[in-house]
Amino acid sequence: MTQPLRGIALALFVVFASALVASAEPGGIGSRVFVVERASESLAVYDFVARKLLPARITGLGNLRHATMIFSPDLRYGYLATRNGQVSRIDLAKLERTGVVFTSENSIDNAISQDGRVIATAEYAPGGLTLLDAESMEILKKHPANFEKDGERFASRVTGVVDAPGNRFACVLIEAAEIWLVDASKPEFPIEHRIKTHQNNPYDAMITPDGRYYVVGHMKSDRVSVLDLTQPEGGIREVSLRDPKRDYDKAMPVKLPHLASWAVAGRSIFVPLVGEDRLAVLDRTTWNFVRSIPLRGHPVYAVRSPTEREVWVSFSGDEDDAYVQVIDVEQLAVVDTLRLGRRIYHMDFTPRGSHVLVSANADDKLLLVNASTREIEDAVEVASPSGIFGAWRAFRIGL
Amino acid sequence: MTQPLRGIALALFVVFASALVASAEPGGIGSRVFVVERASESLAVYDFVARKLLPARITGLGNLRHATMIFSPDLRYGYLATRNGQVSRIDLAKLERTGVVFTSENSIDNAISQDGRVIATAEYAPGGLTLLDAESMEILKKHPANFEKDGERFASRVTGVVDAPGNRFACVLIEAAEIWLVDASKPEFPIEHRIKTHQNNPYDAMITPDGRYYVVGHMKSDRVSVLDLTQPEGGIREVSLRDPKRDYDKAMPVKLPHLASWAVAGRSIFVPLVGEDRLAVLDRTTWNFVRSIPLRGHPVYAVRSPTEREVWVSFSGDEDDAYVQVIDVEQLAVVDTLRLGRRIYHMDFTPRGSHVLVSANADDKLLLVNASTREIEDAVEVASPSGIFGAWRAFRIGL
Repeated sequence: MTQPLRGIALALFVVFASALVASAEPGGIGSRVFVVERASESLAVYDFVARKLLPARITGLGNLRHATMIFSPDLRYGYLATRNGQVSRIDLAKLERTGVVFTSENSIDNAISQDGRVIATAEYAPGGLTLLDAESMEILKKHPANFEKDGERFASRVTGVVDAPGNRFACVLIEAAEIWLVDASKPEFPIEHRIKTHQNNPYDAMITPDGRYYVVGHMKSDRVSVLDLTQPEGGIREVSLRDPKRDYDKAMPVKLPHLASWAVAGRSIFVPLVGEDRLAVLDRTTWNFVRSIPLRGHPVYAVRSPTEREVWVSFSGDEDDAYVQVIDVEQLAVVDTLRLGRRIYHMDFTPRGSHVLVSANADDKLLLVNASTREIEDAVEVASPSGIFGAWRAFRIGL
Repeated sequence: MTQPLRGIALALFVVFASALVASAEPGGIGSRVFVVERASESLAVYDFVARKLLPARITGLGNLRHATMIFSPDLRYGYLATRNGQVSRIDLAKLERTGVVFTSENSIDNAISQDGRVIATAEYAPGGLTLLDAESMEILKKHPANFEKDGERFASRVTGVVDAPGNRFACVLIEAAEIWLVDASKPEFPIEHRIKTHQNNPYDAMITPDGRYYVVGHMKSDRVSVLDLTQPEGGIREVSLRDPKRDYDKAMPVKLPHLASWAVAGRSIFVPLVGEDRLAVLDRTTWNFVRSIPLRGHPVYAVRSPTEREVWVSFSGDEDDAYVQVIDVEQLAVVDTLRLGRRIYHMDFTPRGSHVLVSANADDKLLLVNASTREIEDAVEVASPSGIFGAWRAFRIGL
């Protein structure tokens, strides 16, 4: 082969090879599920239709404790916010990182605006809200969460950032005890509302799946703050999670796990309570306490089926964390107890509710459980799996 | 250039060109919206994030009256069922047809199983249900809808096929007046339940968005048949859409439009009634008639926002079909009337509810309307647009 021919052959090989890389992954983007491998700071990718772990792993992502992944509405990108202030942009077709930016030294949460143009990250240090261009990853705006107390200025940590209807973001300031509503459509991203919570030390928040209520939990309190986003000027309503039929040691407050663990289904809101062996059930419309559902242990996550007929609950503690209990949403009672794998960290239903994806952390396994038969239909090896993020989350409010 | 060099250069060009074709379309798959161009038997493709009509048009698709498009859960394919019995498989990345099969001479509807493996098409002639392999487009099974009447055998037309929880399909036989529930997981796709409706001449059906109730409309009847899919052995319940406060000429029955036009939102079901200037509101739990909502004209489609806070209604008739009325789901009343474009045929919300896509058939326009400000933010030329099908329908039950 002559030199020029060799050069062209090499060029051809490179072109073919890149074409192969670009199309190497089987299946389509819609059924891709990203699983946080906490110990190795990486993401594994599972296809729930092909029922295969894809060969690609995305590595070098930073501290993935409480990492959350969001998706652009066109399904080109996923965005992973990590505890060390790093936001990584993942190309969902190529399954590789195509952008990274450090928004702070320590961040906790992120959200994408309804129009897909802006990412918001909640920062712990320095405390504030950062707005990023979703395409270029450029920092567009920083809202420092400064506040004054006893004549001194502090920067509050920010958490619980979610997308809200009307192309808004909602977030909550921990030390400042204040909810912010931010308009992602306007230049400079104005903070339209600043609403003080009555209680101190908010530590996490969630939005109901219809985008109506923003719910804030407070440290060492049995009452959550509820803000109706259709009328934020109406202010905070406090809702108790205490069961009036139970006796409480006054020194032992009801504690709450992270609010992403609440399930809204049918007419009810299901709230796992840390350190108690029950779910609290609230009425979805009135927010009144309805009843407790006794459980086998201390609940961590309550996840609703898209059919809203069942809620699946995971547990903490060596005695219980291999189990999942299935709650019937009409009966408000446990109808099944499943032993699925050791140390279950996270669960999510597939988008039309046929299966549940479960990470069994101590077994290094991701499980695919049939939601009807409740049998494990697939199990793949994933190193130290925790959070599970399916691409279809792009199409849900507040995820 | 020597001959071999020329050959290699040509090969290189071909490789580059195919790479370009594969990535020629801007944006990602998640925001692609397929718009039926009825007159030209084609699909136009709009990207609601990029706010652009894509250059690709998919042509030669057959008679697109009442065409429905469904999507595979991995978002590799869309499937279009057409009135001439033709099912086309569209590659969602390449935006071209990659498969076609004729399942009958005349079909009306299709659905995809929860596991994404099986397509069901409802056939008019010869009447029956066809099950196709979603990947190969091979016909796996035909269930002829044969029935006997007065000693003679007939083949019934089949309509209203939807996916249902548990990897099932539901459909209804028009002349045989019978609902079928089919298990898409088992070989031979057994018809597990055959449930006679009390009334004759069912003509269309829908499933509620939680996958619980299958609702069948009957010709010239003001009562629909409701089947609770969690207990099909409980049989049919009949629900009246008559407003007890209204006087009806006994000769003039309440008519129903196609059942895809019902909206389920909040605690209510909103039913447009052909030839009446009202929506009937039913209670979502009890199915009892709640009230009528007076409208400016005869409603055709009622479409719910993903927030379940609003329902948007379109109209028939030259006087009214340029208008949309917005219903507040809590107030059960019209809160806005918009003039959007001539002869509005179809509407759908973007997945997180920020915008409404509207086809203005007589204006040859697809509109993108801001759901909060209710302003038209984009308008593109589409020839004779009717049905609007966004890729995110892959992740909804019963679409």
